[in-house]
Amino acid sequence: MPTIGPKTAARLVFHLLNRPRGDADALADAIVALKERVQLCSRCYSITEHDPCPVCADPQRDASMICVVADSKDLFAIERTSAYDGRYHVLGGLISPMDGIGPSQLRVRELVDRVATDAPAEIVVATNPNAEGEATALYLSRLLAPSGVNVTRLAYGLPIGGDLDYADENTLARAIQGRRSL
Amino acid sequence: MPTIGPKTAARLVFHLLNRPRGDADALADAIVALKERVQLCSRCYSITEHDPCPVCADPQRDASMICVVADSKDLFAIERTSAYDGRYHVLGGLISPMDGIGPSQLRVRELVDRVATDAPAEIVVATNPNAEGEATALYLSRLLAPSGVNVTRLAYGLPIGGDLDYADENTLARAIQGRRSL
Repeated sequence: MPTIGPKTAARLVFHLLNRPRGDADALADAIVALKERVQLCSRCYSITEHDPCPVCADPQRDASMICVVADSKDLFAIERTSAYDGRYHVLGGLISPMDGIGPSQLRVRELVDRVATDAPAEIVVATNPNAEGEATALYLSRLLAPSGVNVTRLAYGLPIGGDLDYADENTLARAIQGRRSL
Repeated sequence: MPTIGPKTAARLVFHLLNRPRGDADALADAIVALKERVQLCSRCYSITEHDPCPVCADPQRDASMICVVADSKDLFAIERTSAYDGRYHVLGGLISPMDGIGPSQLRVRELVDRVATDAPAEIVVATNPNAEGEATALYLSRLLAPSGVNVTRLAYGLPIGGDLDYADENTLARAIQGRRSL
């Protein structure tokens, strides 16, 4: 398993051996429940215990916005900011020709269907600020152009709280190009 | 001197002792020349060997834009990006009530005078993405509002090439708020 090598594995085993039997049973049950209870939301494809997921089931969330993310991890990162109150769509990855991942391996068809049926006003593409994320964002913006929906992208620029001359040149260049009126 | 403690100082001294006498003379001359030849540009107040500085003297640079920076270090960081071809104005610091630095300690008066005489179309405030930088940007935008110049600020958002869920929550929130149409 990731980040667990032989030494850490041994440490975990000895820890479990030193705990009461109930702890080991509880851990085993939790692992079984993980696979049994966690499923994909049938609307946004995020991982959830209940279908639809809490975000899709919440009538307070703005249904006119759909935020497109690569995976559920990114969805939870955005939820932690409390800066977004629309719905989500989890693609299940990013377009990456180098890894042989094209739109057909992702939930792009499902997104197009949702745009057609739900007619949202805005699609916020929140993919990673790298080559795959950019390629996916551009692909989606072209694909969705005929539907007339406003496709937006997270801002590039300076991270908050830093120092201007610590920013790398590409980021600083994007911050200059993306400057905004005060 | 910064980053040079007793051990590094001793290492530098022994290095100089091992070199021919000409090297020590050249270093001494360079240090004297540093104070003698380096001065402030009389237009933008950046450090320069010649007055006006190469940016102010270059007729190819867009005179309708003035980029306001805290110090010459930030000016050079922006020059390295090649993303900006206007002029500069070096404030000599940032507004910081905690450190007792107000507008009167900075070259704010000089900026207002330049805006009045040069009548630029845009002032790009390129201060640090932190509390002092924000305070300075807001102060300048209010101060310059009557002149009608368009005051802009560098974009906040995701640094290029990173991973969305490595961004801190404030930065991600600003990236969402600052999203742009594709």
